[in-house]
Amino acid sequence: MKTFQIKPIGRVHKDGDKTWITIAPDYQDGLLGLEQFSHIMVFYWFDQHDTPHDRGILQVHPRKNPVNPLTGVFATHAPVRPNLVAMTICELLSVVNGRLELDAIDALDASPVIDIKCYIPERLSTKKVRMPGWVNTEKNSGADVKG
Amino acid sequence: MKTFQIKPIGRVHKDGDKTWITIAPDYQDGLLGLEQFSHIMVFYWFDQHDTPHDRGILQVHPRKNPVNPLTGVFATHAPVRPNLVAMTICELLSVVNGRLELDAIDALDASPVIDIKCYIPERLSTKKVRMPGWVNTEKNSGADVKG
Repeated sequence: MKTFQIKPIGRVHKDGDKTWITIAPDYQDGLLGLEQFSHIMVFYWFDQHDTPHDRGILQVHPRKNPVNPLTGVFATHAPVRPNLVAMTICELLSVVNGRLELDAIDALDASPVIDIKCYIPERLSTKKVRMPGWVNTEKNSGADVKG
Repeated sequence: MKTFQIKPIGRVHKDGDKTWITIAPDYQDGLLGLEQFSHIMVFYWFDQHDTPHDRGILQVHPRKNPVNPLTGVFATHAPVRPNLVAMTICELLSVVNGRLELDAIDALDASPVIDIKCYIPERLSTKKVRMPGWVNTEKNSGADVKG
């Protein structure tokens, strides 16, 4: 099958309690009006896992907890998967000269940003949701909660 | 900057009132446990816009309505943008042999699927949200509402 090409448009930065995204100059025209949204969807790339090995992993124990049943990566948010697309919703504090100040982000420092979309809750809200038991078990902390 | 490679994992199908996704045999082990979720996030590629021209468009009138102010693509869900990543939440009816039966999907027939993730509402819910006026204006119908 045909493959598609992703060009990073920016990067995640974390320094102490500051979190921001820089958008490359070539793409900054795409930010017009973004400051009118309080929240954005940030799409980034799990680049630390961009190896044939990690992109071949199809099953994991969610949240890296062996107690959780072996589960297909498509039934998780694990950072290993065939295409390393990550999505997280962030509160946007300001947009100045291609710098997006965020409240926080569930991403590693220096992660490549591949897309930004406005966050419109009605598009994402659903009423009755059914989920397996492991979703509501106690979470580990930090990066381990991915899954 | 380095670029990243996306390999389609499956495809969207629409036929009459039926909607389903087929996952390629090589990736079907990644579906283990997915049927325990009532809803999934489907990531697909706006492949009909995979041209240098459309990937260079940085500003649009949201929902293709000239009345809406010119807006950066990153402040919209427009299907033209530097990286053609789309995300939509779907109700999952069944998973059988790599075939995911869906209630409906906001995607064209034959769209390449690039990732599936479980939908966990608490990850996406936010409390107070601020948005520009064009979001709540009357919507057009069909594919035109993208934006």
